[in-house]
Amino acid sequence: MQKLLITLFLICCFSLVKAQEIKSPDKNLTLKFWIAESGIPTYQLSYKNKQVIKPSKLGIETKDVPSMLEGFTLSNAEQKSVDESWNPVLGEVKTIRNNYKELLVTLTQKAEKDRYIRIRFRLFNDGLGFRYEFPEQKNLNYFIIKEEKTQFALNGDHKAFWLPGDFDTQEYSTVTSNLSEVRGKMKEAVTPNASQTTFSPTGLQTPLMLKSKDGLYINIHEAALVNYSTMSLDLDDKNFILSSFLTPDAVGDKGYMQSPGQSPWRTVIVSDKATDILASKLVLNLNEPTKYKDVSWIKPIKYVGVWWEMITGKSTWAYADVESVQLGVTDYKKLKPNGKHAANTAHVKEYIDFAAAHKMDAVLVEGWNEGWEDWFGKTKDYVFDFVTPYPDFDVKELHRYAASKGIKMMMHHETSSSVRNYERHIDTAYKFMVENGYNSVKSGYVGNIIPRGEHHYGQWLIDHYLFAIKKAADYKIMVNAHEAVRPTGLNRTYPNLLANEAARGTEYESFGGNNVDHTTILPFTRLIGGPMDYTPGIFQTKISAYNPENTSFVHSTLVHQLALYVTMYSPLQMAADLPETYNKFLDAFQFIEDVAVDWDDTKILEAEPGDYITIARKAKNKNEWYIGGISDEVPRTATINFSYLPKGKTYVATIYADGKDASYDKNPQSYAIRKVLVTSKSVLKQAMAAGGGVAISIKAEATAADKKLQKL
Amino acid sequence: MQKLLITLFLICCFSLVKAQEIKSPDKNLTLKFWIAESGIPTYQLSYKNKQVIKPSKLGIETKDVPSMLEGFTLSNAEQKSVDESWNPVLGEVKTIRNNYKELLVTLTQKAEKDRYIRIRFRLFNDGLGFRYEFPEQKNLNYFIIKEEKTQFALNGDHKAFWLPGDFDTQEYSTVTSNLSEVRGKMKEAVTPNASQTTFSPTGLQTPLMLKSKDGLYINIHEAALVNYSTMSLDLDDKNFILSSFLTPDAVGDKGYMQSPGQSPWRTVIVSDKATDILASKLVLNLNEPTKYKDVSWIKPIKYVGVWWEMITGKSTWAYADVESVQLGVTDYKKLKPNGKHAANTAHVKEYIDFAAAHKMDAVLVEGWNEGWEDWFGKTKDYVFDFVTPYPDFDVKELHRYAASKGIKMMMHHETSSSVRNYERHIDTAYKFMVENGYNSVKSGYVGNIIPRGEHHYGQWLIDHYLFAIKKAADYKIMVNAHEAVRPTGLNRTYPNLLANEAARGTEYESFGGNNVDHTTILPFTRLIGGPMDYTPGIFQTKISAYNPENTSFVHSTLVHQLALYVTMYSPLQMAADLPETYNKFLDAFQFIEDVAVDWDDTKILEAEPGDYITIARKAKNKNEWYIGGISDEVPRTATINFSYLPKGKTYVATIYADGKDASYDKNPQSYAIRKVLVTSKSVLKQAMAAGGGVAISIKAEATAADKKLQKL
Repeated sequence: MQKLLITLFLICCFSLVKAQEIKSPDKNLTLKFWIAESGIPTYQLSYKNKQVIKPSKLGIETKDVPSMLEGFTLSNAEQKSVDESWNPVLGEVKTIRNNYKELLVTLTQKAEKDRYIRIRFRLFNDGLGFRYEFPEQKNLNYFIIKEEKTQFALNGDHKAFWLPGDFDTQEYSTVTSNLSEVRGKMKEAVTPNASQTTFSPTGLQTPLMLKSKDGLYINIHEAALVNYSTMSLDLDDKNFILSSFLTPDAVGDKGYMQSPGQSPWRTVIVSDKATDILASKLVLNLNEPTKYKDVSWIKPIKYVGVWWEMITGKSTWAYADVESVQLGVTDYKKLKPNGKHAANTAHVKEYIDFAAAHKMDAVLVEGWNEGWEDWFGKTKDYVFDFVTPYPDFDVKELHRYAASKGIKMMMHHETSSSVRNYERHIDTAYKFMVENGYNSVKSGYVGNIIPRGEHHYGQWLIDHYLFAIKKAADYKIMVNAHEAVRPTGLNRTYPNLLANEAARGTEYESFGGNNVDHTTILPFTRLIGGPMDYTPGIFQTKISAYNPENTSFVHSTLVHQLALYVTMYSPLQMAADLPETYNKFLDAFQFIEDVAVDWDDTKILEAEPGDYITIARKAKNKNEWYIGGISDEVPRTATINFSYLPKGKTYVATIYADGKDASYDKNPQSYAIRKVLVTSKSVLKQAMAAGGGVAISIKAEATAADKKLQKL
Repeated sequence: MQKLLITLFLICCFSLVKAQEIKSPDKNLTLKFWIAESGIPTYQLSYKNKQVIKPSKLGIETKDVPSMLEGFTLSNAEQKSVDESWNPVLGEVKTIRNNYKELLVTLTQKAEKDRYIRIRFRLFNDGLGFRYEFPEQKNLNYFIIKEEKTQFALNGDHKAFWLPGDFDTQEYSTVTSNLSEVRGKMKEAVTPNASQTTFSPTGLQTPLMLKSKDGLYINIHEAALVNYSTMSLDLDDKNFILSSFLTPDAVGDKGYMQSPGQSPWRTVIVSDKATDILASKLVLNLNEPTKYKDVSWIKPIKYVGVWWEMITGKSTWAYADVESVQLGVTDYKKLKPNGKHAANTAHVKEYIDFAAAHKMDAVLVEGWNEGWEDWFGKTKDYVFDFVTPYPDFDVKELHRYAASKGIKMMMHHETSSSVRNYERHIDTAYKFMVENGYNSVKSGYVGNIIPRGEHHYGQWLIDHYLFAIKKAADYKIMVNAHEAVRPTGLNRTYPNLLANEAARGTEYESFGGNNVDHTTILPFTRLIGGPMDYTPGIFQTKISAYNPENTSFVHSTLVHQLALYVTMYSPLQMAADLPETYNKFLDAFQFIEDVAVDWDDTKILEAEPGDYITIARKAKNKNEWYIGGISDEVPRTATINFSYLPKGKTYVATIYADGKDASYDKNPQSYAIRKVLVTSKSVLKQAMAAGGGVAISIKAEATAADKKLQKL
């Protein structure tokens, strides 16, 4: 299955006092490493002779053993080249090339009884990855990390697309500013959240997207975050040096390590073309191949769900309006139903009917289980048991009904961040899923973590999220984790992790709204780590239509919502609006019904973070193509070529375009659908409204009957 | 099964401004409760007109809602009397009488929207129990406890038998001093431990045993510690007021509460006779009846084990001498065995052979599973998996071999306090036990707790210990938890909790030694809460006989070791020494082989904390009696009557006595065994050496063949 082409050569360098240097396969990137004064490991990175990372220090500050910061000598250096390819289980492309030059340096602290560590650099055409490695040795077994001291010294006051650094949430609006402006904008940037812990007036999250004044696009993140705490960045806003800032645990420690072990990869994706950033597979390439022998049960999912109606305030997760309940004690049959509980059998059947009628794979139901009356903000340990339905939710009947229509049920495990409680019930909960026909779960981690003092992004939770994913795999269950840590490409190794939330999703359109440019930024930031369950497809953009008290509105046109199914990659995509609304716009909904969620190929046609993105993708194992383009608040013309279509053939393209009078704020539901004929030589100039977009489906070659259609 | 005799009368008092008063059934104890100035709930307790607890404040300081400390009015008061009896599954007596007068007061804070709490007092002949109750109500749902402010104002500078207050260990030597001397002796009292967190220079643990200058014996503890954090006491050493001091969690909070809920019972056992303290069943009576429907699988256990040889340093838990291992990664078959690993199949069979030859029930084996090479002090999360044996330990073969000889294997689950890891594996571990014939587990919590920042005695762990006990019951497994919280009578409700350690056990005889008076104090302190797995029976009192480098010695005579099987009540008793040693002293070992571990009746014949204890017990469902007497470092004569024997019958008593030249330090192995005839009228005056004792077994009526025996 994997095509492996490794050319390997090792060089044991004897001139170790000089800088070590490697170049990317295309020679555009140059990485230098050397030991600076006082024995400090130092690296720099350039792209086409422009400095990306100026000389920057590397090291680990430890708590219980002498630190690994200085006094190093370079005792060995090895290089090798790798060029291989592999096929992801689910993905944007069928085959991914993994082509890099590697430099592995061994660094010895003679003063610490010759204790040594290694730093492994991998230089791809699209950027750099490096990590610390702690080989097993007599004088380095266990140690506690006080702070990782990795620097990314930037070459100027770049434009940044940033979120406040936080140990518990990424659900902030992205701020676009120069780095020198971060401090001034921080206070405003830290909007309220159910759980949040900022750490610095210049603290930033990753993936951090930067654009230099000389036109370089730079993305800093991490890959393969396993058994380590999440890295944020602290900005020295005088010198524009970013320093790693790890998430602490309840007692302030930042990592418990045992050799042999390693840090996650620190990644710097760089190009002079924004489209290259979106096309980068560097983060996936730095993750390990899948550990699963059987992946046949892992499938992409398009789903609807009993969710948006609660998010808007039209319905409730809770069954009764009481202040407090106790699982196993409260008799729900004796409680008065509040009359707004959405997850009732009859209503869920309506969703199942809609899903079956429109080729969805699954139906999510939130609020199906006992405990929602007081689930939030009470630091309640035993908050859910994950197996006890409300009196009005008939698990067996819904399983039977859904199965009869070929629809899978998607489980919901809100943990309320009571993580011990979840782990105590997780086997029983997964077994319950298997017994009742659920093969995927949306998990949630709203609110402060229990055990108290731990953070969403600390090593303790990093371990938990992966525990839950691996445990789910034992039951052949796919996972969609919300409020968990932002992804770092682990879906390569654990492909049942279909998607995460871990950013400000569509739900905020009902909580006051997202910035209009939000979805033109997310693919450059959050999505660099992996798929997002953004839950697009909101057609009723005025929330007051569902809940008169809610004055929020969706900051995009309806067509922009369609385009998101292409621009926001995920093998798990929700059609998030209500069936009653979709039934009013079935012509537009056709795009959601048609669009693929797993792909053979992807072309990033146009992109500029914060402004616009246009992407074309070929459906997995099908001659079908889907194109999505989105704009920020500025109306724009997307230029869409079709050069990826098979040569010499003519296809029917269905174009979903903003209406001429459309705009996200004034007339979001204005759209026009037309069919045209396209070939590989066609080029479409398509107007997009303010907050608008374009969506195109190409499902079939033109036939005689299509002769009347206009050619592009 | 339960004989229930409740006489109930309720009095709604209309004169609520005056003090509420109740008397114990025998009228010796008087409890008064009133609302003092500023609306502060206040109580006092007297015994035969002597003040036990002077006027003392009650209340709860909260973090997130207004405190429950003052501004109270007494809005209701109810009294009732209860006289019933019940039979413990295992115990010191067959039937326990539960006879008390109850006062239930309702306290309202008008300024807090009529928020109310209740305090329930139960006054027994042997003391007082009271607890806070938080009824479900609109204005009191969730709250966080900052501190419980319960006072026990003492009537003078009592003599105290105390341990330093600590959130993580009770493994201190008891200090005997006046309360005014605590501060001066604290520093010396805090000896090193694997995990320890003291909180005050006058902090004390419970059960705290006190003796007033006017001859009152007072014991302060708690009962039914569930979903709450453990209470220590802080001493105001000017005024001799003890105040509750709860164990904090990682962020400093002391309890997360939801109404309806309650605190554990705070207990004050009091008498002018020390023997009454040991006979008290107050703590058990304040616990709930067992929640288990089937208790037929819960049996007392007398056992030997592969343990003492590691404690002494003769053998090791670890299989190999390496610094670091990783479960699932390290290939143990490739490691070089250290040659001192005790838990190997052949050696364990020797223990099984001994157990079978001497009517033991079970064999404990520690160090049987992978991970002991680096199990301690590394704050290692994945430290054990509880199911993977070392290469030299054949689980199946030992199961077969033990079963063929009628012996049960006792599992060992050392958690290294990595509690999440234990919970993750607990189902698998218990299943493994069931599949391999283990029906009991010794669990251990050595070292600092993971999640870091939590303490052994905090609410988080209190919940865990009970989780493990209840989960064990699902698998019909009996639990013997070491380093867990000291017991509070929960073995009534969860009788598969056979015993705990939770004090300085016999192991310290190998770590420098216990005080000679240690075992004359423990029944007045630690054992007030429940059975202890003290692991007596050490015949080879010089540890150097096993490990030349270890100069420790056991601070008792051999006979004292025998007597402990009677004086230290537990339905789980270890014969802790090595079979090779017992085989040299088989005449003395006969007492351990004979002695019962479950009882129909118990008579506390003589007792003075710190000096001596003599107890007689009747074996459960047998006409057999066992008597144990112990002395501290002072040689004494025990006065033992036999009035509990059936009248008019003559029995053969086997008396195990210290040799005339015996002493704990000079000649501990000197003993003499003699048989005499006794009747219910006999009285034995038996000399006990320094650190010595006496043990007597009465197994049969005298027959003609016994004529030649001396009469007492």
